[in-house]
Amino acid sequence: VDLLPAEDGEEATKHFLQELVNILLAYINKSLKRSSKVLDFHYPHQLKEGLEGFSLELPDQPDNLEQLLVDCRDTLKYGVKTGHPRFFNQLSTGLDIIGLAGEWLTSTANTNMFTYEISPVFILMEEVVLRKMHSIIGWPEEDGDGIFCPGGTMSNLYSVLLARFHLFPVVKTHGMSAIPRLALFTSAHVHNLIIFTQINTTFWFLSVRGKMISSELNSSIETAKSKGLVPFYVNATAGTTVYGAFDPLNEIADICKHHGLWMHVDAAWGGGLLLSNKHRVKLQGIERAHSVTWNPHKMMGVPLQCSTILVKKKGLLQECNQLCAEYLFQPDKHYDVSYDTGDKSIQCGRHVDVFKLWLMWKAKGSEGFEAQINHCLENAEYLYYKLKRRSDFQLVFKGKPEHSNVCFWYLPKRLQSILPSPERDRELHMVAPKIKTKMMEEGFTMIGYQPLEDKVNFFRCVFSNPATQREDVDFLIDEIVRLGCEL
Amino acid sequence: VDLLPAEDGEEATKHFLQELVNILLAYINKSLKRSSKVLDFHYPHQLKEGLEGFSLELPDQPDNLEQLLVDCRDTLKYGVKTGHPRFFNQLSTGLDIIGLAGEWLTSTANTNMFTYEISPVFILMEEVVLRKMHSIIGWPEEDGDGIFCPGGTMSNLYSVLLARFHLFPVVKTHGMSAIPRLALFTSAHVHNLIIFTQINTTFWFLSVRGKMISSELNSSIETAKSKGLVPFYVNATAGTTVYGAFDPLNEIADICKHHGLWMHVDAAWGGGLLLSNKHRVKLQGIERAHSVTWNPHKMMGVPLQCSTILVKKKGLLQECNQLCAEYLFQPDKHYDVSYDTGDKSIQCGRHVDVFKLWLMWKAKGSEGFEAQINHCLENAEYLYYKLKRRSDFQLVFKGKPEHSNVCFWYLPKRLQSILPSPERDRELHMVAPKIKTKMMEEGFTMIGYQPLEDKVNFFRCVFSNPATQREDVDFLIDEIVRLGCEL
Repeated sequence: VDLLPAEDGEEATKHFLQELVNILLAYINKSLKRSSKVLDFHYPHQLKEGLEGFSLELPDQPDNLEQLLVDCRDTLKYGVKTGHPRFFNQLSTGLDIIGLAGEWLTSTANTNMFTYEISPVFILMEEVVLRKMHSIIGWPEEDGDGIFCPGGTMSNLYSVLLARFHLFPVVKTHGMSAIPRLALFTSAHVHNLIIFTQINTTFWFLSVRGKMISSELNSSIETAKSKGLVPFYVNATAGTTVYGAFDPLNEIADICKHHGLWMHVDAAWGGGLLLSNKHRVKLQGIERAHSVTWNPHKMMGVPLQCSTILVKKKGLLQECNQLCAEYLFQPDKHYDVSYDTGDKSIQCGRHVDVFKLWLMWKAKGSEGFEAQINHCLENAEYLYYKLKRRSDFQLVFKGKPEHSNVCFWYLPKRLQSILPSPERDRELHMVAPKIKTKMMEEGFTMIGYQPLEDKVNFFRCVFSNPATQREDVDFLIDEIVRLGCEL
Repeated sequence: VDLLPAEDGEEATKHFLQELVNILLAYINKSLKRSSKVLDFHYPHQLKEGLEGFSLELPDQPDNLEQLLVDCRDTLKYGVKTGHPRFFNQLSTGLDIIGLAGEWLTSTANTNMFTYEISPVFILMEEVVLRKMHSIIGWPEEDGDGIFCPGGTMSNLYSVLLARFHLFPVVKTHGMSAIPRLALFTSAHVHNLIIFTQINTTFWFLSVRGKMISSELNSSIETAKSKGLVPFYVNATAGTTVYGAFDPLNEIADICKHHGLWMHVDAAWGGGLLLSNKHRVKLQGIERAHSVTWNPHKMMGVPLQCSTILVKKKGLLQECNQLCAEYLFQPDKHYDVSYDTGDKSIQCGRHVDVFKLWLMWKAKGSEGFEAQINHCLENAEYLYYKLKRRSDFQLVFKGKPEHSNVCFWYLPKRLQSILPSPERDRELHMVAPKIKTKMMEEGFTMIGYQPLEDKVNFFRCVFSNPATQREDVDFLIDEIVRLGCEL
């Protein structure tokens, strides 16, 4: 029997989806169980050769439903359980059941955030959620605009387009050659650089903790001006990817005000802290920004993708991006067409990313988010104090973490007694990759590492999964020692 | 009892998700049933005021699970059933059960297409699916690269970045001011214009059917050169949004070759036809393109979002976009790091959009896609011949549709006898909006309308939902007549 829309397909459809849900439920239980592995690692060639009949190749003829369910099971089996309490590898971790439910509903509704006409409920939810986020930032009620978009890079791209258009509206009709050479300023530890490389960009100097030094920003601006460039945009970061550093937003706001520059805050990772009365002080001054990137799919634990660009000035997003393409948006519709948000977006088809966040907010309340975020930062602090006391670990920088990032080296026995030297650094550089290899092959936990500037490979632990408890932090440390002590 | 990850949360989680699935199954059945409405329309103020307890506002304190399930039911109730066989409003329609299953699994896996490390299976599936698409385009096996990205606008943005970098690699390090003023050429009926407005752009003239006239392109290029601009990029469209027109790709390829320009084909909407032996002739010459946008979420019926940028030259995507940010991609990993696709992408977090397409391909085989696409084009032809015979409808242009778009006016009785005149046009312009208003308020079907250039508001019917049958086409026509005959 065929699935819907085939006639009499109702029972077969129900049966197939129920079978799938059973597979998914089993996976969810496993993901959140400490006794199960985080991953069952295989090399690319092993997966490509087909493991026990799991073939990735696409057929000309259809496979049957039983085979598809087996494929679904295999896909999950060979994947990575990003919701596992011992998965520390990325900024986006966790498996929120309500968020998941939100995604299942979203994909069943399968619509597009294009017009009120085809997404009445989701469009209104977007308005409600964005307004809430504006008020949390601290913008006055009459201000505030924004849109959900697919990821922080897109959000940052919007901010550059907005800043440029705000200063030189002529760019929209006459292109880049109609405006002077612009200069943009950002931290070198910015989340994703690529969009900044298309414009004359100054990467400013940082403190040892990866924070912007505001006097450096000021002199960079003066230098750019003296070269005949027009400074227009500063990107401050609230929560850098590796160190979790917060730039001094009030100082940056003063400088932006003085020079008349657009101030953008990339709070993709740090934005969540605004929900915590304890931690929001780290973002003081964010209310003075012209635009903010804030990704609920990071610190708020919302399933990927869920990212926003928030803009202080109402209407600018639409002015900047609208094409007045009547074939897309008809002004003669019978409802208030200001709800046709498609003209704010540079996208045509826009996935519904708001619903899962809306539903999670209903389920947790703002207080639930606050508790969850405080818990993640407590885990970071626990790890920090633990490592501080040990001689086989070394923190990358002194001082309590501001965000949930904890950066550290592990020193195997033979390196503990050697004094710091270029040679020791060369050896130390190879420790993290070796541990990571073993860690992935065994599959009980996962953490990332990287070098940064003059620092050789170090581990970065991040906490964004509320399922993670102190025992998991202990486990991670023990596991690193177990895998690395003989290196 | 709390949900997972709470201790003993397993049963409560299972129960909650099963309850949700029951709601979703009921919605799926309704969506695909002709006897149910496509939508239950409410004005924004009605939904905002809260209908029967459906409140959109976000609380500080948590709501309980029962309330959340009611909210889920309400969200679907007041939405639009885009999978309904009588929903003709967008290019993306339909509710493919296998695609839906793919999305449910994807959101349960909740990972990121960033590295092989965290998405081993999905990364390999992306490679397999892209290779299949390359071979369908007709590129030799040694060629072909690409990436899934969130929508056609992003795909087109990639193509412009690639073309510019290919011609002037210095743009990556020194920005726009280091390169000459560029000129870009595109059809005015392009899918989404906004990304083209940042560069000097020539919109070429079109034939009455909305096709590019290649001699016009040639002279536009000459004109741009004589103004001191450097032509570098031509965007040809395979399947325009309103008319479904296909540009003459071979002629354009000849011109691009002659002038040394990058040829991009926006086949977001038309790409699906490549899977049909009967219809792929309309895209002849696409194999000569340097890059192609192809959105499986349109003509192939894959749930939104599922979009690709396909690039002929291997390695260029990585060269153009990579930052060699070691904090993102570590070269010293234990597997083949060429599978860490994150450096090809301008995104950091990239949603898994490939799995649902992969699973649908398994379920249908290439032959299933072919049959589905042929069926949609047969529906368009059926509608076309039906309208051609009637005096109360008028086609926007003569000749059989090339894609599944059928554009037409409905003429209420009083307009049928009036000869074409500006006054008749003014009257006719108001007919489609009036019918659409009634149509949405009654909710039995949905179709879009728009004006285009000198043409007053006309309906555009598109077929991409395989659930739609001839009886639904008949219904649409009857419904337009019923709602409009007295206007």
